[in-house]
Amino acid sequence: MAAVEKPLLFSYFRSSCSWRVRIALALKGIEYDLRPVNLIQDGGQQRTDEYKHVNPMQQVPALRIDGVTLSQSLAIIEYLEETRPLPPLLPGDPLKRGQCRMLSDHIASGIQPVQNLDVLQRVGDKKLEWAQHYITRGFQALELLLQDTAGHYCVGDEVTMADLCLVPQVANADRFHVDMTPYPTISRINQALLQLEAFQISHPSRQPDTPPELRV
Amino acid sequence: MAAVEKPLLFSYFRSSCSWRVRIALALKGIEYDLRPVNLIQDGGQQRTDEYKHVNPMQQVPALRIDGVTLSQSLAIIEYLEETRPLPPLLPGDPLKRGQCRMLSDHIASGIQPVQNLDVLQRVGDKKLEWAQHYITRGFQALELLLQDTAGHYCVGDEVTMADLCLVPQVANADRFHVDMTPYPTISRINQALLQLEAFQISHPSRQPDTPPELRV
Repeated sequence: MAAVEKPLLFSYFRSSCSWRVRIALALKGIEYDLRPVNLIQDGGQQRTDEYKHVNPMQQVPALRIDGVTLSQSLAIIEYLEETRPLPPLLPGDPLKRGQCRMLSDHIASGIQPVQNLDVLQRVGDKKLEWAQHYITRGFQALELLLQDTAGHYCVGDEVTMADLCLVPQVANADRFHVDMTPYPTISRINQALLQLEAFQISHPSRQPDTPPELRV
Repeated sequence: MAAVEKPLLFSYFRSSCSWRVRIALALKGIEYDLRPVNLIQDGGQQRTDEYKHVNPMQQVPALRIDGVTLSQSLAIIEYLEETRPLPPLLPGDPLKRGQCRMLSDHIASGIQPVQNLDVLQRVGDKKLEWAQHYITRGFQALELLLQDTAGHYCVGDEVTMADLCLVPQVANADRFHVDMTPYPTISRINQALLQLEAFQISHPSRQPDTPPELRV
């Protein structure tokens, strides 16, 4: 039997999807190695033949773990949840689990994909307006959805997968200068989560591949 | 205790995300009522105040079930899986469950959102080229991913959530005239799935809101 290897995360410091997985790994106390994939440099290191063997979709994150390579951040987090269940990142109650996945997919399918780097490069000149439109539309809905689910965090008072999606998406909103004043619930939860160590050590400003001028 | 009500699905015949949920309901033998939401007519019935109370994101599907309303197709399917487990739509083995969710998210986050109706309306004149680009990119990767996972269907020989995503996405590819010859595995699995009754009765050509000229 092969020796147990540490999981290997392919990550870019600024990728909001990579950040979701870094938070999950931190919360669950899973040690891992990190391989930076710079999405800008050299025309995008995700486009190399070497990386295409890791993830044919040429996106981060990807996690090499337990003998396989998984991509898609929420699939990775669900896998970690099933194989390393503590602390849980999904509520115990099926209805609340459903709501947690709804909020997570709302961000991971409804907001992030239409404002990611590749789409914005294709949009061209109007990319700021485009990103603001889709983040604003998504946050207007998210603010309403949270009225039914939120406690201290997105779903009740425990940190769940939805929170792992929320904080990186708010960081994207900040980058695109989205006015957050219409979203007091999102803002409150974001602030509460940023107090937690797992969200801090996984932060884009503190990664091995963070450029010196962006470190804090 | 309230009488058990049949689930109510808000659906549009042509929505690929609605179709995913219709297949799940059919496979699990869950009886439901259907409320059509026409995404085109009247400027889009999803934009009415009434529907915004159902789903603030103004998208289909949404499912009213067990006293709550869930949106996001994969969150709905995962909820059905946890509360109505038979027949299973996820494999039993954790690694295969991870791969199944990866393939599902690959389509539900990686392909569909960037070629959906709202995005294409915003893209304007170049919408055909845009949709073809993102479906092609996604299918190139999916064809490679399936080499590691597929048996008779996307993950082994049993129908899983990934198959519920694949068939509607291939239908979208057809609508946008994507050449499918480079994707023999996707095409083979799609053909096999279309033989199954659950995929047939849930088909866009056989819905209560299918226009007469599109019925088969």
